[in-house]
Amino acid sequence: MNLILSCVGRRGYLAKMFRNVDPSVRIIGTSSLKFTPGFHDCDENYVLPPIISDEYPEAVIQLCREKNATSLLSLYDADIDRLSRFRTEISACGTTPLLVSDPVSDRCFDKIQTAAFLGENGFSTPLTFADLESAEAALLRGSLTFPLMVKPRFGFGSAHLFRAHTLEELRVFFHYRKNMIIQQLIHGQEFGIDLLSDLNGHAISVAVKRKLAMRAGETDQAISVRNEQLESLAVNIVNILGAIGPFDMDVFITEQGPCVLEMNPRFGGGYPFSHLAGADHPGKILRMLRGEALDLEVGVKKDGLIAMKEIDFRVGEPKSKPFSLPSPTHQNGAKEPD
Amino acid sequence: MNLILSCVGRRGYLAKMFRNVDPSVRIIGTSSLKFTPGFHDCDENYVLPPIISDEYPEAVIQLCREKNATSLLSLYDADIDRLSRFRTEISACGTTPLLVSDPVSDRCFDKIQTAAFLGENGFSTPLTFADLESAEAALLRGSLTFPLMVKPRFGFGSAHLFRAHTLEELRVFFHYRKNMIIQQLIHGQEFGIDLLSDLNGHAISVAVKRKLAMRAGETDQAISVRNEQLESLAVNIVNILGAIGPFDMDVFITEQGPCVLEMNPRFGGGYPFSHLAGADHPGKILRMLRGEALDLEVGVKKDGLIAMKEIDFRVGEPKSKPFSLPSPTHQNGAKEPD
Repeated sequence: MNLILSCVGRRGYLAKMFRNVDPSVRIIGTSSLKFTPGFHDCDENYVLPPIISDEYPEAVIQLCREKNATSLLSLYDADIDRLSRFRTEISACGTTPLLVSDPVSDRCFDKIQTAAFLGENGFSTPLTFADLESAEAALLRGSLTFPLMVKPRFGFGSAHLFRAHTLEELRVFFHYRKNMIIQQLIHGQEFGIDLLSDLNGHAISVAVKRKLAMRAGETDQAISVRNEQLESLAVNIVNILGAIGPFDMDVFITEQGPCVLEMNPRFGGGYPFSHLAGADHPGKILRMLRGEALDLEVGVKKDGLIAMKEIDFRVGEPKSKPFSLPSPTHQNGAKEPD
Repeated sequence: MNLILSCVGRRGYLAKMFRNVDPSVRIIGTSSLKFTPGFHDCDENYVLPPIISDEYPEAVIQLCREKNATSLLSLYDADIDRLSRFRTEISACGTTPLLVSDPVSDRCFDKIQTAAFLGENGFSTPLTFADLESAEAALLRGSLTFPLMVKPRFGFGSAHLFRAHTLEELRVFFHYRKNMIIQQLIHGQEFGIDLLSDLNGHAISVAVKRKLAMRAGETDQAISVRNEQLESLAVNIVNILGAIGPFDMDVFITEQGPCVLEMNPRFGGGYPFSHLAGADHPGKILRMLRGEALDLEVGVKKDGLIAMKEIDFRVGEPKSKPFSLPSPTHQNGAKEPD
């Protein structure tokens, strides 16, 4: 079985997890950069054109075909956003795209759509505005109160995240970049939820962890917990969405109850915490790809398991090959286009 | 030999590096938090009162005494700032403080003092202002130009770092928190320099690396290089400062030449890159502590060595003991003070 980890980045550990389940699985990593730490742990690596380039989707499709890839999953938001629009073409290579459809991708990556989707389906989420005028009106009415978060509409991680305490700050932060949104800051305990859905869009695994320490927008320490309220909330959301493959969700438990902050249709950066607690999503993915039907199961087998991120260092340039489309064949004597 | 790594944080790898040189060295980690990843790699761990508490210095001094610590070094800026004022008391326990003196600490952690020190000694550093009025006047004169960096005077890492493109942004960012400074944004190739000085304040090792990728203010990928200009620049600076122990410096090579951005009197977060290239600072520290006199040496033995940070996960709560001062002895029947 050949598995493509698209935009593998620093997630070499996923390659190891898949191989731990089945040493015969061949992991193919891709990236637009030669210096990709995750390449160290893949069996074969390809440097592809930039995600935003015109030739990128065709390069991915051709890689699927040439490598007889059983499945492809992506670890990077912008990549999922792009490839979710090419599920049919990827499937046509005989490769199962463990990718959400493009409307689901939009509902996850566009924070305005996220808020709308959650609100329409009766899930609590912070009050969110795409324009300054509406936010200022809500402040006047008192339905929105400082402090507010100002962040990129399509961003992720902790880049360009501002906390505004005054109208003056709000205005400057909002205009700092294009496509910023304004969101009510919420308080409470923060949870990360790792899910896995089957190819029909039904959740088959859910694992909840409480975040103990954050660092640069990523979970640094967490404790795996059983929490039926959050488990069923998260399962409901991915089932309504019809997500496919790995999914990651950030939820706060506030004084008013659970409030969903973010959704990502991929392995979250904190998945290893759930993995260590027993959520064997790589194993379940392989079983799924072999045609097995799986029922919903709670991934946390070890309630109360604490884990921490560690830093390690790896020497040397990982091996990779450039992967480019063959140049178009021309008739003899035909000129290259200008 | 007992070595205290004060505020060990996520630097468990330093404990391993010391033990690799000499397996008989006993590493004692401290932190104000029980959940400290670095505790996993120390031989013994103590949870101390918060750094800013009144009882903290006395707790550290007593730990040095009780553990017969040969030496103490700290990995956290705020801790160094505090403990640099207690070098005499630490020495009195028979523990060699691998800590800079408090004036040196001030010159490193107070970015206004950093700029003044570098300027007075003829080293190039970005134009830096502690007040808005002077910065605005410099903008009017044209000696300062947008974009500007606005950051905490005493901060480190990438927290509360703003890039201002307009006067309006500059004003809001400057007033966002207390003690912000305004600095000319500089462009160029970024280098990290790891140094080690002996107990007399003379540099004995220097290792230069070029940063290839950053993430959340930390070096994610780097290539070790030989660069005599940067090596002698960095050695000059620490010798003039009279730094003691590990030291870390950020330098840009701009069109106008090297420009020093930051100095930290501790192991930098990117030290492992230099370690892998041959700079054996833990080994040199142990030799120094055994009384050996060491001459200045270039730490980069493997020019062009590329390394990358990796993420790993560690299960379980590390073992630690609380360490508190014994309650003061009172005469029989004496009342506790209110």
